[in-house]
Amino acid sequence: MSLVITGTMAYDAIETPFGKTDKIIGGSCTYAAYSASYFYKPIQPIAVIGGDFDQVEIAAMKARGIEFDGIEVKENEKSFFWSGKYHMDMNTRDTLVTDLNVLETFDPKVPASCQDCDFLMLGNLMPVLQQKVIHQFTTRPKFIIMDTMNFWMDIAMPDLLETIKMVDLILVNDAEARQLSNEYSLVKAAKKIMAMGPKFVIIKKGEHGALLFHGNQIFSAPALPLEDVFDPTGAGDTFAGGFIGHLAKTKDISFENMKRAIIIGSAMASFCVEKFGTERMKEITQADIDARLNQFIDLVNFDIEIA
Amino acid sequence: MSLVITGTMAYDAIETPFGKTDKIIGGSCTYAAYSASYFYKPIQPIAVIGGDFDQVEIAAMKARGIEFDGIEVKENEKSFFWSGKYHMDMNTRDTLVTDLNVLETFDPKVPASCQDCDFLMLGNLMPVLQQKVIHQFTTRPKFIIMDTMNFWMDIAMPDLLETIKMVDLILVNDAEARQLSNEYSLVKAAKKIMAMGPKFVIIKKGEHGALLFHGNQIFSAPALPLEDVFDPTGAGDTFAGGFIGHLAKTKDISFENMKRAIIIGSAMASFCVEKFGTERMKEITQADIDARLNQFIDLVNFDIEIA
Repeated sequence: MSLVITGTMAYDAIETPFGKTDKIIGGSCTYAAYSASYFYKPIQPIAVIGGDFDQVEIAAMKARGIEFDGIEVKENEKSFFWSGKYHMDMNTRDTLVTDLNVLETFDPKVPASCQDCDFLMLGNLMPVLQQKVIHQFTTRPKFIIMDTMNFWMDIAMPDLLETIKMVDLILVNDAEARQLSNEYSLVKAAKKIMAMGPKFVIIKKGEHGALLFHGNQIFSAPALPLEDVFDPTGAGDTFAGGFIGHLAKTKDISFENMKRAIIIGSAMASFCVEKFGTERMKEITQADIDARLNQFIDLVNFDIEIA
Repeated sequence: MSLVITGTMAYDAIETPFGKTDKIIGGSCTYAAYSASYFYKPIQPIAVIGGDFDQVEIAAMKARGIEFDGIEVKENEKSFFWSGKYHMDMNTRDTLVTDLNVLETFDPKVPASCQDCDFLMLGNLMPVLQQKVIHQFTTRPKFIIMDTMNFWMDIAMPDLLETIKMVDLILVNDAEARQLSNEYSLVKAAKKIMAMGPKFVIIKKGEHGALLFHGNQIFSAPALPLEDVFDPTGAGDTFAGGFIGHLAKTKDISFENMKRAIIIGSAMASFCVEKFGTERMKEITQADIDARLNQFIDLVNFDIEIA
């Protein structure tokens, strides 16, 4: 059974206080697929690329069990391009260039080979396109998660609310949770968002970790405190990819197992930021991941006797 | 043996988006002493108050095992008064009034009955006064912790650095850690601060919890996600009081036990913010604390199998 991940596959040019890249591979789907590929195969991305997308990169993704059945290649067009510059705090950034290119006319197609999908991840993308993907499944995937961003709240809120209604779990960052719910308290925000449809809400807080909400249950996961964050691009997508990869692997959507999935996603995100772009996501090993998970256990583990 | 806590005992007038108080009891020493009193007796505050300090409040503190040997009463003067207004996010506030009153000439005296002190907490106060307290002990207390604030970094950095050199553990918030170290990464900031003297650093992150650093070890404690924060005044002092109260009770300064102390401090702080001023700190029971600690366990507990 496939793990289907839709989103963008792109070229990014990134500037941080520590360095600068020319065009490197990026996009929500790329990061999420790389991350998930450490836990599940096959990964089936649904995305669009231009003829300029590097064959070496395609081969590298295929070698990690990322299939290309659902990837449309527009040979005579250019891939989506994004360029941004991070501020000193690495939490805020300015977008310098957004060239939609192939994305402008993207019409996602779910191929027959992806119909056996239990776990579907809708990476950040226009909300109507996220809906289009869901509608093409003859049988609804068992568990659908979505990511989004403030941009869609600003310009396409009705579409976004429609997509939110259709999913089991939504991932947003803290600012987006507040914008979507009009509540400052993240607990109140999560409750309002759950009332919009999803039974689970994950609020990502960057260097402060993430919160998982389900009914009245809350789980708080830390982020690994890091000496250096080299490039935060893709950290959220990598987190989501590790999360859905673990769910797909274990086929267990209990709250307990989602806690594990969040810790795994957090571990994967902590690798992502250590180098530019997807570089670190291509080179880590299972031993690296295990060692990082042990760091997470040490980081939060305490033992208290209550009378 | 006494747990000695120095700091301010004050009147506060607080305005939040949810309400407004006239003069109510506050001050770093008051909050810390109330919080610690749930874990250890006797508590010996070293502080100064005016003749206007309410006898009912003094009786209430005494009833909780808070002794008044080290409290100087300046009968014809007024207690320190602070007034502030919180913004909608409850993380930022404007100071409206600061009337030093008795604090202007405060000359802390450690009475003979406090000399048997193993655990000393220096609440937020002028750094030179914090030093004066340490110097009065004929035998250095086994474990000294200090709190401080950005204000002293702005106007009394050399004095502050001198105090920091003398303590075992320092508590600062994330902005203060960055200001003190000139490092954005909290990991790097903590390392620089440890190099200034203290073997332990706690970085408080408000609604995002707290980090404990010691050598290369890090512990991350969450804050309890709350629907409503009614009044954040004193939350940091309450955290510190619960922390030192647990250490004094257990006489155990291992890293493992400090993790417990941080969870206990976090639990106490989560009560503090539920009502105005010290109100909630006067009424909670051991059963309330135990229930809250169980919430913390549920909040962060996960179980992961690593190959």
